[in-house]
Amino acid sequence: MDSPASTPPSAVVLLSGGLDSATCLAIAKAEGFSVHAISFRYGQRHLEELRRASRLAKQAGVVSHRVIDIDLGQLGGSALTDETIGVPKADSVDQIGDEIPVTYVPARNTIFLSYALAVAETTGSHDLFIGVNALDYSGYPDCRPEFIEAFEAMARLATKDGVEGNQPLTIHTPLIDLTKAQIIARGLELGVDYSLTLSCYDPVPEGGADGAVKPCGRCDACLLRDKGFRENGMSDPSLAG
Amino acid sequence: MDSPASTPPSAVVLLSGGLDSATCLAIAKAEGFSVHAISFRYGQRHLEELRRASRLAKQAGVVSHRVIDIDLGQLGGSALTDETIGVPKADSVDQIGDEIPVTYVPARNTIFLSYALAVAETTGSHDLFIGVNALDYSGYPDCRPEFIEAFEAMARLATKDGVEGNQPLTIHTPLIDLTKAQIIARGLELGVDYSLTLSCYDPVPEGGADGAVKPCGRCDACLLRDKGFRENGMSDPSLAG
Repeated sequence: MDSPASTPPSAVVLLSGGLDSATCLAIAKAEGFSVHAISFRYGQRHLEELRRASRLAKQAGVVSHRVIDIDLGQLGGSALTDETIGVPKADSVDQIGDEIPVTYVPARNTIFLSYALAVAETTGSHDLFIGVNALDYSGYPDCRPEFIEAFEAMARLATKDGVEGNQPLTIHTPLIDLTKAQIIARGLELGVDYSLTLSCYDPVPEGGADGAVKPCGRCDACLLRDKGFRENGMSDPSLAG
Repeated sequence: MDSPASTPPSAVVLLSGGLDSATCLAIAKAEGFSVHAISFRYGQRHLEELRRASRLAKQAGVVSHRVIDIDLGQLGGSALTDETIGVPKADSVDQIGDEIPVTYVPARNTIFLSYALAVAETTGSHDLFIGVNALDYSGYPDCRPEFIEAFEAMARLATKDGVEGNQPLTIHTPLIDLTKAQIIARGLELGVDYSLTLSCYDPVPEGGADGAVKPCGRCDACLLRDKGFRENGMSDPSLAG
């Protein structure tokens, strides 16, 4: 660590406003990093998750929080960005298929990590946290460990650090081997306020003037999350009230 | 090739409107690909190169041309996107330094290629052309062959094709080992109209109401280009008139 003891090293954390990234942020803080958080406005069906990301970032005391506009919507091909494709619903996690779901966004994590790499370079950070998960990942190709390893290898060649022989970039995936229940248990230990997080792919307007929404309770993300809280002997605090 | 003979395979071509990408587009067409071109509006100091890209795409008869808005400007750190950093000028190529120049945009090619990967996935393309050049690249880390190889390895794991065992993505860099003079010679053979291209980092307004600009003639890009045309026994057609 070449930073003086009085200046903690900085890390870039991808923060969506969901359960996984909120936990990832808490882990980065617990490991002693000062955090540059980044979120994306990428043509999501709803922007509530960005409001949640802002509140989580503020609560965690990050150094900076960038919300970067990117237009994945014009690329099409995902239920998360294309209104003409329905979000699949089910009654339990057992009904979630093995194939790559329509909620997959083409090359999304590659694009997100590329921006994170740019932020890492401009902020002098050598560490990058992303809350991908290989167990509950519902078949997304860009949540697999081999993808993350290949991105890290590429990233180490992509920037000035790679040419100048500086400390290489490390991509941290602290959640990659955890079940949703284990992720929640870790976050609870670290004091994550899960009532602030929103994971739902298709939230329902609550009808108020503030545009607040509540989780649908039946998309893959809601079902996996519900199961995780139940395995911790509690109900999802984002569903309370 | 699993396309029927009557349907040429498609490729994604990164098209900036400069000399290199115009040549790259012509090479992709000459190799029999139908082309999905993509350009980026990324906080450039000038947008003339996007107008040139549109004209080049139209002239080449591409299947589609996407102009994708991305905000590299808010990341800062480059003379190409930050008005407070001056573009370096010189009188000859001998004065161009060996270090990474201030015109380097952090992680730019990584971000560009990531979008190209998304377009490849949504258009069913397995080929991607980028006009990077390792000889005249002025020290940009993300123009090196080892970076491109690492990106290709990552990209093959990043998408549905990588999971489903389909034809893997190939990144074509037909200019990577060519001098500027050789690139121009190849483009002239293929009929590229170089008067349409604009490579200058810092073009000068011509003063007309149409916002037209002319090359400055003294940035790295202008100097390298001028030398390339002179080595082909001609002057730069974009400087004519």
